[in-house]
Amino acid sequence: MSIKEKIESAQHDVVTTLQQYFDQPLDTEKTVKQATEYGLFNGGKRLRPFLVYATGEMLGANKQDLNVLAAAIECIHSYSLVHDDLPAMDDDELRRGRPTCHIAFDDAHAILAGDALQTLAFELIASHTFSCNAQTQVKMIAKLANASGLEGMVGGQGLDIAATDKVITVQELERIHRLKTGALINCAITLGALCSEKADKQTLENLSVFGYAIGLAFQVHDDILDVEGDTFTLGKPQGSDLAANKATYPALLGMLGAKQMAQDLIEQAHQALAKIDADTSVLAALANYLIKRDH
Amino acid sequence: MSIKEKIESAQHDVVTTLQQYFDQPLDTEKTVKQATEYGLFNGGKRLRPFLVYATGEMLGANKQDLNVLAAAIECIHSYSLVHDDLPAMDDDELRRGRPTCHIAFDDAHAILAGDALQTLAFELIASHTFSCNAQTQVKMIAKLANASGLEGMVGGQGLDIAATDKVITVQELERIHRLKTGALINCAITLGALCSEKADKQTLENLSVFGYAIGLAFQVHDDILDVEGDTFTLGKPQGSDLAANKATYPALLGMLGAKQMAQDLIEQAHQALAKIDADTSVLAALANYLIKRDH
Repeated sequence: MSIKEKIESAQHDVVTTLQQYFDQPLDTEKTVKQATEYGLFNGGKRLRPFLVYATGEMLGANKQDLNVLAAAIECIHSYSLVHDDLPAMDDDELRRGRPTCHIAFDDAHAILAGDALQTLAFELIASHTFSCNAQTQVKMIAKLANASGLEGMVGGQGLDIAATDKVITVQELERIHRLKTGALINCAITLGALCSEKADKQTLENLSVFGYAIGLAFQVHDDILDVEGDTFTLGKPQGSDLAANKATYPALLGMLGAKQMAQDLIEQAHQALAKIDADTSVLAALANYLIKRDH
Repeated sequence: MSIKEKIESAQHDVVTTLQQYFDQPLDTEKTVKQATEYGLFNGGKRLRPFLVYATGEMLGANKQDLNVLAAAIECIHSYSLVHDDLPAMDDDELRRGRPTCHIAFDDAHAILAGDALQTLAFELIASHTFSCNAQTQVKMIAKLANASGLEGMVGGQGLDIAATDKVITVQELERIHRLKTGALINCAITLGALCSEKADKQTLENLSVFGYAIGLAFQVHDDILDVEGDTFTLGKPQGSDLAANKATYPALLGMLGAKQMAQDLIEQAHQALAKIDADTSVLAALANYLIKRDH
């Protein structure tokens, strides 16, 4: 199976798992449920679910457990997109080529949909009976919460707002991305690994180095695409980061410097994988894919 | 100790627990952290924490465990207030006599603060080592998530929005409140009880009847205060529900009918308590207090 086919397979599995939740009879209100599904079933890349599956399968984890973790982490990611797109935040009307949640519904339902998606992430993990023990299940929830909150994604969003219209250093930009996107990408890998008994401390550390390297490379490549991509392929307006006066790697390092940085990070990622006693070929292929994609 | 002193004691304990979290060195951004604290340390009644403590202590639960659960449930409640006050939702500028979070900061930071508070609720429970087993800890997280999400608080908020400017029945209004506020109030009681080995199935069921009765009585009394209270004592503009064209119990049942309903619900609550084999005097005193308070 090619890396593209593996990504599509992960997309299919996580969407099926999430759809099962919404296919149940739910005691709720129909518009807020629709807005929540709209924010989730959005044709996204599902990178974080892919990382859960690839890491877990590499270490022999149970597939049902991975489905639940992949679904949960995608709920967190989707909630952050719904809230980030709001007029009070990035004010984006288009995501992946279709109206954002607050455009398709309204601001109130987009706020509630994001809120519901965050809750659902924790509900999914806490409602599932894992093949690992309950202590590990609690640890997974703690990891996901930490990666999502003040010391993770929300904190990174705060740093991003604080840096807008300011001159910042490459180190400061790295900190923004480490919290805003790196923490959750890394968490996906950690959750996949925690499902397996094979994941010793050393393996988790090497996976963490891998995770932060590809997370940052992903972001650098996104910044490059924001300059070099086109609106149709990106599914969002080309140049939107520049227009919003946000610091980007091409702006700080030049386009050649940014491309070299992405390449160096992928090299670091491969070095970390080489230290892991398992078949790391899928994660290695993903690392290469991340800096070659056009959207 | 009087019921008022017990409520103050719960307020003190939950605020101390929450303050301990924010007193740690946190790797985050300072304004989003400040907005999060602002949304949380707001001089609230802390009814839900009180219910965690009162129920848990009645059944002999560990105090440290109760502190964490009380803190977590107050994070969920506070996040909902911060988001409900946003211009896209209820557009309130005043809560408990001071500017709401989006007025003191801005909409973006209020959205992020609410998001961070929700995450913190789950992080607090998942990071604590409980004296009960990890299975119970997972169950607590599942209960809290269910009470907060589409089938609980967020779903109730959706129903509330859908009912605005519409003529609805008393049954429909009850469903709104069962989800919007009842689920979380009931969850507070359940979490307190789950901490104790004494909480058998029958006790949990009786507590659930008690919880929904006082939750609804609390809401009916709030509607009464919205008509009869004054802005200074309420800490929010008197008549704001009527002004927003929201269905209320006095509007549907008349003032006398609403007062009778609150009284009947408190009677139901006492009947449920009478079936519990423990000293229920504190919960009983709270039930009486809830429909006598002036704010």
